[in-house]
Amino acid sequence: MQTLTVELEDRSYPINIGAGLLHQQSLLQAAVPARDILLVSNTTVAPLYAGAVREAFADRHVVEVILPDGEQHKSLGMAGRVFDVLVANRFGRDALVLALGGGVVGDLAGFVAACYQRGVDFVQVPTTLLAQVDSSVGGKTAVNHPGGKNLIGAFHQPRGVLADTDVLATLPERELQAGMAEIIKYGLICDRGFFAWLEKHIDAVRGREAQLLSQAIYRSCQIKAQIVGRDERERGDRALLNLGHTFGHAIEAATGYVEWLHGEAVGVGLLIAARLSQRLGGLTEQDVERVRQLLERAGLRTDAPRIGAARAASFMSADKKVQAGRVRLVLLRAIGEAYVTGDYPDAALQDTLQAQFGA
Amino acid sequence: MQTLTVELEDRSYPINIGAGLLHQQSLLQAAVPARDILLVSNTTVAPLYAGAVREAFADRHVVEVILPDGEQHKSLGMAGRVFDVLVANRFGRDALVLALGGGVVGDLAGFVAACYQRGVDFVQVPTTLLAQVDSSVGGKTAVNHPGGKNLIGAFHQPRGVLADTDVLATLPERELQAGMAEIIKYGLICDRGFFAWLEKHIDAVRGREAQLLSQAIYRSCQIKAQIVGRDERERGDRALLNLGHTFGHAIEAATGYVEWLHGEAVGVGLLIAARLSQRLGGLTEQDVERVRQLLERAGLRTDAPRIGAARAASFMSADKKVQAGRVRLVLLRAIGEAYVTGDYPDAALQDTLQAQFGA
Repeated sequence: MQTLTVELEDRSYPINIGAGLLHQQSLLQAAVPARDILLVSNTTVAPLYAGAVREAFADRHVVEVILPDGEQHKSLGMAGRVFDVLVANRFGRDALVLALGGGVVGDLAGFVAACYQRGVDFVQVPTTLLAQVDSSVGGKTAVNHPGGKNLIGAFHQPRGVLADTDVLATLPERELQAGMAEIIKYGLICDRGFFAWLEKHIDAVRGREAQLLSQAIYRSCQIKAQIVGRDERERGDRALLNLGHTFGHAIEAATGYVEWLHGEAVGVGLLIAARLSQRLGGLTEQDVERVRQLLERAGLRTDAPRIGAARAASFMSADKKVQAGRVRLVLLRAIGEAYVTGDYPDAALQDTLQAQFGA
Repeated sequence: MQTLTVELEDRSYPINIGAGLLHQQSLLQAAVPARDILLVSNTTVAPLYAGAVREAFADRHVVEVILPDGEQHKSLGMAGRVFDVLVANRFGRDALVLALGGGVVGDLAGFVAACYQRGVDFVQVPTTLLAQVDSSVGGKTAVNHPGGKNLIGAFHQPRGVLADTDVLATLPERELQAGMAEIIKYGLICDRGFFAWLEKHIDAVRGREAQLLSQAIYRSCQIKAQIVGRDERERGDRALLNLGHTFGHAIEAATGYVEWLHGEAVGVGLLIAARLSQRLGGLTEQDVERVRQLLERAGLRTDAPRIGAARAASFMSADKKVQAGRVRLVLLRAIGEAYVTGDYPDAALQDTLQAQFGA
């Protein structure tokens, strides 16, 4: 087991990464000090892994909420149903919400934990690659609104993250690929060495070679923990983590959150960001081709859906990165060097959107 | 105009109290720096005071949401409708929510501001006595759940509070009385001198004598600001502010949030807390009688509804003050000296509930 810490003063917490963590009962018990536990999972994950959690907490009061699987269920209405369960069981401020699942489960359960009685404790047990390297770390919680992704949410740090890499063995290939998009993102943002390492090992990581997959997860969490430690509330640097996401969110929203997995949309979003960066003179054509190839080798889609440039722009302006009426974008100066800006020629963005999404 | 500050480091903010503030356009404009403003009010208050706000912000982009009046509308569903308006108008992170109304408007608008895009700015313009002395200050935001009051919420400090005492002229008598309960609460919690001052001036305050009413508001806000500055997240002292509230919330929930105003329920709750404190040896019979008389002179009800002790206990245990399965109560050692405890004989609580609410 490897342990990282997200440094946030009195809200610092550990990320534990390793094989078989879900079966280390004493580890789980120590990470979850509460008597009343709301276990939130989904119909896919619960049959596989909820049993291990139940066993570890046989002497506690565990109530389960099993959500339907899928991004379209990450809604305020579904959060309302989880609040109902908490209230019906008279859970108090000393209860704890344990999220066992991917990003949808973690984001929604975290949002409920943030708001129930103005905040109860929360532990993340991510079961997808995407959740292990990204969404379970950093305290961003949210539900979607039909008008845009993650528009209703809260910053609420978990008291711990337990990433059991063994559970990735049962992860569908498509979900694994989606997680790779976020891993590639970390290389692009701030670590060209990690990007090159991924170019070398992508086949092995995709082939789930335990040692290399663990290394990729660890380095991803390390980068995320550092950035979150510097800027918890996204007043500055943390926005770098949104590389590819403004474009990706537009794809997800335009396709109703059902056709594209979040990571798949982010993958295409990374490539669009790279192409716009090239147009603005940041990346070379060769750099963009390296990005495209790495995404392709990770099994990810590299063609944007033909949702139309105007529709994409409309969803982008409903996203959370708008400041003074202008969408702030994360772009690349080089592979391994991202920056945030609201200062770009509109024509370049327009041209890129039209080339990618169609007129 | 008098100004107090809630001291919370980088989230410190001013409370401005005075006559005619709503017509000081430069004051409003300085307090609300945003271009996009969501004005949240209700059907009673908006016709009276929204015009002044609109005038002050004629050069901004102001969108209005007018809620139906009443505690029963402080729901997650209604919050959802306010989110819809924000999204439909493509308001970004730099938008500001301005709450113009009483506690229901302020709590709900504040909750929406806390969660929209994980937090946007928020200004309180309280128009009831209760909101001016209590709910607009301190950053507690929430909506109700059918199972209990304020069960879904967030801590989200406003960037300013503007309490225009002139608006109290149009406040219905019953609402004014409800606000008096919270003012009396402050005396009971920590200021026996203020309690005695109220005994002396209650008729004038109730008669809305501007000078004395302003003094009562100022002292109340001062006490609240001090307590919140010491303990924003209610890890300790802030719980003192809940004196009377656990009983009061049970009354409100048991009567469906329509029959009793919050302040009315709190008023009776104060008296129940005083009676239980007497049973436990804290207060004398004479102290309890002083509390009862002051409430009565403020025009408040002093008899609890016959909702039954078991039902009251059930709602109390669904309230937010439960720790390790035990309801924590705020009780009185003396007038002006409250304390929080989970350590009390159950029989004393039971007897008090039965005497007050019926078997």
